[in-house]
Amino acid sequence: MSLLVVGSLGLDDIETPFAKVEYAVGGSAVYISLAASYFSPVTNLVGVVGDDFPSKYLKMMKERNIDLVGLQIVEGDKTFRWSGKYSYDMNHRDTLFTELNVFKDFNPIIPENYLSSRFVMLGNIDPVLQLGVLKQIKNQKLVVCDTMNYWIERKNKELRETLKYIDILIINDSEARMLSGEPNLIYAGKKILQMGPTKLIIKKGEHGCLLITDEIMFSAPAYPLENIFDPTGAGDSFAGGFLGYLSKNDSFDNDTIKRAVIYGSVMASFCVEKFSVEGLLDLNYLKINDRFLQFFSLTQFEES
Amino acid sequence: MSLLVVGSLGLDDIETPFAKVEYAVGGSAVYISLAASYFSPVTNLVGVVGDDFPSKYLKMMKERNIDLVGLQIVEGDKTFRWSGKYSYDMNHRDTLFTELNVFKDFNPIIPENYLSSRFVMLGNIDPVLQLGVLKQIKNQKLVVCDTMNYWIERKNKELRETLKYIDILIINDSEARMLSGEPNLIYAGKKILQMGPTKLIIKKGEHGCLLITDEIMFSAPAYPLENIFDPTGAGDSFAGGFLGYLSKNDSFDNDTIKRAVIYGSVMASFCVEKFSVEGLLDLNYLKINDRFLQFFSLTQFEES
Repeated sequence: MSLLVVGSLGLDDIETPFAKVEYAVGGSAVYISLAASYFSPVTNLVGVVGDDFPSKYLKMMKERNIDLVGLQIVEGDKTFRWSGKYSYDMNHRDTLFTELNVFKDFNPIIPENYLSSRFVMLGNIDPVLQLGVLKQIKNQKLVVCDTMNYWIERKNKELRETLKYIDILIINDSEARMLSGEPNLIYAGKKILQMGPTKLIIKKGEHGCLLITDEIMFSAPAYPLENIFDPTGAGDSFAGGFLGYLSKNDSFDNDTIKRAVIYGSVMASFCVEKFSVEGLLDLNYLKINDRFLQFFSLTQFEES
Repeated sequence: MSLLVVGSLGLDDIETPFAKVEYAVGGSAVYISLAASYFSPVTNLVGVVGDDFPSKYLKMMKERNIDLVGLQIVEGDKTFRWSGKYSYDMNHRDTLFTELNVFKDFNPIIPENYLSSRFVMLGNIDPVLQLGVLKQIKNQKLVVCDTMNYWIERKNKELRETLKYIDILIINDSEARMLSGEPNLIYAGKKILQMGPTKLIIKKGEHGCLLITDEIMFSAPAYPLENIFDPTGAGDSFAGGFLGYLSKNDSFDNDTIKRAVIYGSVMASFCVEKFSVEGLLDLNYLKINDRFLQFFSLTQFEES
């Protein structure tokens, strides 16, 4: 099924205890699309870059069957920039700088042939823009949305409005607590389900994630890696694998959605093993399925 | 099969954001024995209390078929005291005071009819005492051991010696990092397996636990509770449920040990729902099995 991804594209400076990279390709839409591309035959991307965005990254995305008709390239302006630094505790990062550049005036315009997309992923951008996307499209079967503390604090009212039109919200644990005003994660989750989404995924970094719906709760661990090189993009890779798997199966019943959570976790685990998007470039069905089976043995037990 | 538990008994002052209790029964041996008592027909306890230890608590333990022949009651001295305070983040606690009292000169003496115990749980006490217990017993089939940062720092050499005679070590994540000197938990676990234990369980509080052996890794979440009243004793309740289940089945093959991890998690979840040991007093097979099945639905997915 057709998959639409709206989000940011950026050039990131990333520093971890192990290495440092500058002007590496990043942004939510990039990680989401790359992760989804292993499940979806075509991924339609809507975003914006400046004229400094290296063409090698466009080529890289096209080679992964990511359709760039919806990518705006703004002449005379620069691509969104972000810089982050991780300490040994990879769950924590400091943002060193953010330069909005082309992102300041970004207005996502959905190309004609994307308008009937059935599966839609709204990456972490202004909730007003997210709602604007939803007003353009029609025939969507499932809308998945990410957000962050910045929007929860500064555009709370607008975010609450957008949430009414969302099927699945994916956020991290501190964001869930902030959005709901509840310290207990389970209670926080139930409160968020009353805001619009019928399903909520709470990401917990190295502690995995939790799916909460009106019907079920499902807990998935993170893959136990001995070496984590760069956590940047892990959450977006999760979202891409998750929604990619759902769109491939054109379903989101409870069994499918549980497996989608695992495939999302698989893609996040590949992402963090290498710097920037590198961990998402050299995969194939066998590698992905092998790690899915490792998740299976990591979590499954006999009832008696 | 016969189960021997050696550890502390105490009178605890506990403060959480929800309530405050004073002189509540506590200590590793108490929580372990109570949790194990739902699986093991008789639990043999070895520990020490002062003459101030309320007889109602002795009665309570006897009613749960905990054999107190090995409990030393020291006339003219006081029971071990501990006081802790939890903030809203229940993963963190401050120790307000510790009074060793009778525990200062504790020397565990294993009664004659406990010496052939097949399953042995060494609660968190001085590793020299733990080794002393192992020198007394014979015919043990499985020895499980807990320890803490205090012993890792101050009796490292002695702890390393004790670990050589341990089958399963149960510690928390920060202790695993401290003992191994490795920040990455998986790598830390593999290093600890080289110290003696053939199996390691790393407890991660609200994030569940991880079993690491030479053969398998197994991850279990914590039960998603809306209300956590008092985390005191959660780790010991885990250990009690875990070893109780193994002793009941007289086995520790991979399938049994995975289920034991879940039963341990079940008992920990009951423990934290109420203050002190209260959550462990009013259980039965049906309640325990029902929560086990909830863990099953929380974690299980179809392979395809």
